[in-house]
Amino acid sequence: MEIESATQEKAGPFTSAWSWLKALPGKFKAKVIKVAKSISKLGKDDPRRIIHSIKVGLALTLVSLLYYSRTLYDGFGVAGMWAVLTVVVVFEFTVGGTLSKSLNRGFATFLAGALGVGAQRLASLFGDKGEPIVLGFLVFLLGAASTFTRFFPRIKARYDYGVLIFILTFSLVSVSGVRVAELLEMAHQRLSTIIIGGGACIVVSMCIYPVWAGEDLHNLVVSNIEKLASYLEGFGDEYFHYTSDDEEKDRVSSKDKSFLQGYRSVLNSKSTEDSMANLARWEPRHGRFGFRHPWKQYLKIGAISRQCAYHIEALNSHIKSNIQASEEFKSKIEEPCTKISEESGKALRSLASAIKTMKDPSPANIHVEHSKAAINELKLVVKASSLDQADLLAIVPAATVASTLIEIVKCVDKLSEAVHELANLAHFKPVEATVSPEKPQLLHRGTVNPVLDGDNSSDHIVIIIDENSTVSRENDKPQATKPSQQHPGV
Amino acid sequence: MEIESATQEKAGPFTSAWSWLKALPGKFKAKVIKVAKSISKLGKDDPRRIIHSIKVGLALTLVSLLYYSRTLYDGFGVAGMWAVLTVVVVFEFTVGGTLSKSLNRGFATFLAGALGVGAQRLASLFGDKGEPIVLGFLVFLLGAASTFTRFFPRIKARYDYGVLIFILTFSLVSVSGVRVAELLEMAHQRLSTIIIGGGACIVVSMCIYPVWAGEDLHNLVVSNIEKLASYLEGFGDEYFHYTSDDEEKDRVSSKDKSFLQGYRSVLNSKSTEDSMANLARWEPRHGRFGFRHPWKQYLKIGAISRQCAYHIEALNSHIKSNIQASEEFKSKIEEPCTKISEESGKALRSLASAIKTMKDPSPANIHVEHSKAAINELKLVVKASSLDQADLLAIVPAATVASTLIEIVKCVDKLSEAVHELANLAHFKPVEATVSPEKPQLLHRGTVNPVLDGDNSSDHIVIIIDENSTVSRENDKPQATKPSQQHPGV
Repeated sequence: MEIESATQEKAGPFTSAWSWLKALPGKFKAKVIKVAKSISKLGKDDPRRIIHSIKVGLALTLVSLLYYSRTLYDGFGVAGMWAVLTVVVVFEFTVGGTLSKSLNRGFATFLAGALGVGAQRLASLFGDKGEPIVLGFLVFLLGAASTFTRFFPRIKARYDYGVLIFILTFSLVSVSGVRVAELLEMAHQRLSTIIIGGGACIVVSMCIYPVWAGEDLHNLVVSNIEKLASYLEGFGDEYFHYTSDDEEKDRVSSKDKSFLQGYRSVLNSKSTEDSMANLARWEPRHGRFGFRHPWKQYLKIGAISRQCAYHIEALNSHIKSNIQASEEFKSKIEEPCTKISEESGKALRSLASAIKTMKDPSPANIHVEHSKAAINELKLVVKASSLDQADLLAIVPAATVASTLIEIVKCVDKLSEAVHELANLAHFKPVEATVSPEKPQLLHRGTVNPVLDGDNSSDHIVIIIDENSTVSRENDKPQATKPSQQHPGV
Repeated sequence: MEIESATQEKAGPFTSAWSWLKALPGKFKAKVIKVAKSISKLGKDDPRRIIHSIKVGLALTLVSLLYYSRTLYDGFGVAGMWAVLTVVVVFEFTVGGTLSKSLNRGFATFLAGALGVGAQRLASLFGDKGEPIVLGFLVFLLGAASTFTRFFPRIKARYDYGVLIFILTFSLVSVSGVRVAELLEMAHQRLSTIIIGGGACIVVSMCIYPVWAGEDLHNLVVSNIEKLASYLEGFGDEYFHYTSDDEEKDRVSSKDKSFLQGYRSVLNSKSTEDSMANLARWEPRHGRFGFRHPWKQYLKIGAISRQCAYHIEALNSHIKSNIQASEEFKSKIEEPCTKISEESGKALRSLASAIKTMKDPSPANIHVEHSKAAINELKLVVKASSLDQADLLAIVPAATVASTLIEIVKCVDKLSEAVHELANLAHFKPVEATVSPEKPQLLHRGTVNPVLDGDNSSDHIVIIIDENSTVSRENDKPQATKPSQQHPGV
């Protein structure tokens, strides 16, 4: 390369132009390869995108050809255009989106059409001169009023498109200036073409590899919890062995980094979850999800996950920070802290898998209790620290990590409660009871009070529970219905 | 009320039905009042909503009447309908949104129209039987390909609507089955009506009380920083005097709560900021904002604000938590902690006001330095704590608060850097220099190294700077261009 540029400098402008021209196909090729790569990446990340594009093309072709043949052979007329228009505007990525837009469009057209005819008749009573004034006034009034309703958050979330179509159709019909007899014919055509277009969208959307917003929300919530779990499971190792051998760490960092970064996408997940939950409400019964599946509860779980992610963000700043904490103190708290972190991670993973498989989340309780027990261990260790060196300043960073971990356990506890609520609302399957029914109270959630209330009372009894035992669902059910604690962070 | 229900129980079903009927107007009235209240609240929260609604009504009436009169008198035909349609679909709350949709619609219609004519001519070469097949194939191909491009994040953000209109127009034109001579007439009509509709929207949107997305983004970023500032300014008082007199606190809580809750809206501000920045790019020069105003920098500032809000969320859990920290230790660190919190709050408020007034943000530097000095004070106090009682466990909560405050100062420092960058990019006005030019190095940002690097070195020199002195802009400018630190939390 260096030799080439040296030759170029010696040569005249013609030669350099020639070499630029010669390089052009290469550059073009590189550009094409880059675009092709980003396309294939987009497709690989979510193959449903390719399927969706094909589905849209299919629905569009079907309706277009229908319109095309009709125009040629029996003059279905310009109204057929509305079928094509409907397909383009209404076909969304998820079934919920397509249904929501189709239904909004259908009902809004019907309602606005009827009102428009009424407005036209009313205006015609005012004579030739009064008619445009009355019509203009009515269009202004309904246009402004409808636009204002779009600012209501609930209408915005669910009926925004319907209101838009309402304004559109009302204006068109009321000022169309055609007679009522013609109007009825037009209305019939319009509605039937919308039904054809919307129907084609709904059928194609639901029958060919459907993408359900509800299922997406379900999977998103699960994967978010799993990301938090991965972080917590790996945190202990990452924090306590960071300073000892930086170099070795950097060497393996390529594989390590991913689980340390995953939680970040949880921080800003609110808007995605909200819109998915809104679309999910429109969807019929599908797969494992009933008609009145408690989608709202997913939002609650998502909110608690985010709160947990905020604490992890605080935790994460300590991995990166250059502050050298007292190694002695760190090694003292290493075991309980790692245990807290690992057990909360396991609890989260168990909760995620319970949601994923729609099974009773009770197996997570053990891990929550273990992490609470580890908090007590941690407190004993800290209490026992005699502080010979009395270097409080060096202890602060590690103490902060411990304290943040305790906050995370609180969050995990809240999350567990919310998932139990979900399990109850959505009738998750019970896990097979492996514990004999004689001692069902052993793992009863809530009999162990949150360890944190009253920090000075170190005389808590640490309950160590066999990890292999699970609880039958009947005993856990009343717990699951208990209202979750307030979580004002969301 | 109790007496009434007792009477009702004695009476027969007729009487109870009558009393229900009698109560109906009251219930109806209550419902109406409730709706009216929520409408007036929506209007009061942002009066621009009412103005926007009126603007939409106005544009719609203008275009409708034009269409109405044209249809009656010179047969402008069904194409006029597209003007009404354009107004309804294109008119957005902000000027940027309206411009973005109008331009997208115009260019997409033009491009797709031309391609559609080409497709039609190409298909006609294949004879009567081949034509529908070729057309169907082309519609399928372009429909699917265009739909796929909508998944690219950059296209989704800026040209989503354009792609939609492209698919729509291409399908309509290519299967319209009309001859080219007619098509050109139709295209002329279609484009002119879109220009009328879009033009009306743009004129009304920009001339009557315009709502600029850029200005909204500017104000949002400022108000978010102010919310964080309010929290930090009030935090010291709230934390250190919480346990001493709970009752009195609860009495005044009605006015206190607001500043403690404000920061929460910052946590989920990302999607709003992103979409506003996307719309702001479409807007022309307006007010204090030039054509190439650095909107991207606002996103960066917003991201750092959110990171700061995450730390505040962690801080906030300590106000609420029941853990009784050691009062002795708390009273020791009260002064430096309150100072850190107050000074960072002041720094944020100064940065917010610098963005708001578009003036040089250098006055904030003093507060940043003060808060860093307070960190050193805090470290000295902590180091000096002899821990006679040796109750480390009781110290941990307060130590965590201190440690979180230090993290917040880091964030504030990053934010200050980002705001200096913005000031440089957007050419903020310099503040009047009150310091003589002989000693300009005194407040030079960055000459004081971040105190946190190397925690053990307590031999830092604390530089106390007179708050009344400010620095001339020339000396600060090179600092402002220095690239900001990485902030991987966003």
